[in-house]
Amino acid sequence: MAKKLLTTLTLMASMTAGAAFAGGHIEGAIKARQGQMQLYAHYLGILGGMARGNADYDAAAAQAAADNLLAVASLNAGSLWPQGSDMDSAEGTRAKAAIWENFPDVGAKSMALTSAAANMATAAGTDLDALRAAMGDLGGTCGACHKAYRGR
Amino acid sequence: MAKKLLTTLTLMASMTAGAAFAGGHIEGAIKARQGQMQLYAHYLGILGGMARGNADYDAAAAQAAADNLLAVASLNAGSLWPQGSDMDSAEGTRAKAAIWENFPDVGAKSMALTSAAANMATAAGTDLDALRAAMGDLGGTCGACHKAYRGR
Repeated sequence: MAKKLLTTLTLMASMTAGAAFAGGHIEGAIKARQGQMQLYAHYLGILGGMARGNADYDAAAAQAAADNLLAVASLNAGSLWPQGSDMDSAEGTRAKAAIWENFPDVGAKSMALTSAAANMATAAGTDLDALRAAMGDLGGTCGACHKAYRGR
Repeated sequence: MAKKLLTTLTLMASMTAGAAFAGGHIEGAIKARQGQMQLYAHYLGILGGMARGNADYDAAAAQAAADNLLAVASLNAGSLWPQGSDMDSAEGTRAKAAIWENFPDVGAKSMALTSAAANMATAAGTDLDALRAAMGDLGGTCGACHKAYRGR
C-alpha cells in the first residue's frame, strides 16, 4: 500500500511536470480512467447483485469479480490523471481541479479503495454474509472520492 | 497462463449458462470491456509514443505503463463477455458472435496478448531498444483479435 501511494505521488508529480504527456494525451487519459470506472462499476455490480439478492450467490464468480476489482483498483493512477485533465480545462470529464491541489488526500482516498477492495477479495469467496459485510466499506470509498472530487 | 485460460474458459462456460448475469447486465459488461480497451489504448499510447520518438524515453514511466497494461490484460474475461453481448444481439458493440463460437481460439488470442504484455513488462524499463523490440508482438496480438472478431 505504501509503495503504491509513493508510486502514485511520484507519478502524479511527474505528470505535473507534464513533459511527455501534454496535448492529445489528455483526452485518452480521460477515456482510460473512465474505462477504469466502468470496470469498477461492472465488478461492483456483480458483487452488489449478490449482496442484494438479485443474483444467486456464486462463490467462484464473486471471488473472480473481487479479484478483478482489486486488480483494477491497483493500477497506478499517475498517467490517468495528467495535469490539465480537470473539468475546467478539458471536455468530457467531471473531475474537479481540486484533485490536483490535494494529492495527499486523493492518495489516501485511493488507498482506502484499494484496502477495501483487498478486504472484499478476502471475503467474497467465503460466503454471502462475508461478502455483504465487505460491501459497505467498499461502496463508501467510492462515494468518498466522488463526493469530494467529482463535479456535476 | 494456463490457469488464466482455464479460468477464462470456465467463466465463459458459466456465462453461457447465464443464470446470474442475464438482462441488464449486458450493457454494463459491454461498457466495462470497452473500458478495458480504453485502458489498453492509453498504456499502449504511452509506450508507442516513446517507441516512435514522439515522447522522450522515460524508463520509470515506460515500466509503469507496461506493468499496468499487463494487469489490465490479466483481468478475467468471463464476466465481461456474457452470452448475448455480441453485435447481433446488443447495441453499442462490434463484438462478432463468432467470439462465442470459438472459445479455444479466443482464449489462445487472449493468452497471446497476456504473454506479449508480460514480455513488454520485462523490456519496457530496460531501454528504448528493448521497448521497441517488444512493441511489434504486442500490437500484433491486438490486431489478431480485432481482425478475427471485431465487426465494422
